[in-house]
Amino acid sequence: MNLVAQPLSQEAFAAFGEVIEVGGAHVLINAGKCRRYTDLMQADIVDGAVGLSLFEAEIRPMPHHCDLLERHPLGNQCFMPMGNSSYLVIVAPDQGGVPGTPVAFLAQGHQGVNIARNTWHGVLCPISGTGLFTVLDRIGTGANLEEHVLAQPVTITV
Amino acid sequence: MNLVAQPLSQEAFAAFGEVIEVGGAHVLINAGKCRRYTDLMQADIVDGAVGLSLFEAEIRPMPHHCDLLERHPLGNQCFMPMGNSSYLVIVAPDQGGVPGTPVAFLAQGHQGVNIARNTWHGVLCPISGTGLFTVLDRIGTGANLEEHVLAQPVTITV
Repeated sequence: MNLVAQPLSQEAFAAFGEVIEVGGAHVLINAGKCRRYTDLMQADIVDGAVGLSLFEAEIRPMPHHCDLLERHPLGNQCFMPMGNSSYLVIVAPDQGGVPGTPVAFLAQGHQGVNIARNTWHGVLCPISGTGLFTVLDRIGTGANLEEHVLAQPVTITV
Repeated sequence: MNLVAQPLSQEAFAAFGEVIEVGGAHVLINAGKCRRYTDLMQADIVDGAVGLSLFEAEIRPMPHHCDLLERHPLGNQCFMPMGNSSYLVIVAPDQGGVPGTPVAFLAQGHQGVNIARNTWHGVLCPISGTGLFTVLDRIGTGANLEEHVLAQPVTITV
């Protein structure tokens, strides 16, 4: 199955989580030299707390072959690029406990993405930049990873 | 008063908070293609919750003139650059409720900084890159900002 990654936008991504980017309501701080966009990430953590981690990921060659999706039943997972990395965001609706047809987005280096709790998604997949990301997700014990090997792998181009 | 910004390191910055960067303990995830450095930020929030915001700051010319420090009595404040911005981190110890002698650090674009609760600091001051930052700080009501105009402004070079 071939997919072309579509531009990431809040409207297109709404069923899977949030796009975190500038452009909406803000306040001017620091004598007018900084715009603050406040409280943009909806946390949804079960039995744990949100914490900050760093992910240092290899830059992936294109086209990208995806044969595995995963989801986290106990919390959302938010990725914020640090080194101008554009990256693929591969998600799928749930169909009776397994992923339905995947959808691919191309996120730019100024865009973060907050994948909603229990949403099927591919692993972090930077295609440019440094591959370093700030990640906000659940810190806690217990099983928070479910993986599903795709019967039909997906090839993604941009 | 003139200050030369010193390289940001965990050792040099320890009295003021945390440097958030790769290099310590990690686990390999995503079939070995990603290093995860987990739970790097110590949250210290009074009467509120930590939330994610975006700061879009002007790039400042150098040398930088600093005439104001501020602190947040109700929470830590963590800055993670998104667009490879290097930035000044100006901090000062407290001396009886006012800032003591300031210290300046130069953070690189792959380094985040978590300024400890109630620590005197200058405003966000990127000197290269895009000026876009992911910020984790307290979301809540109540007075969480104290400002202090410096009797003796500081000029910072790198």
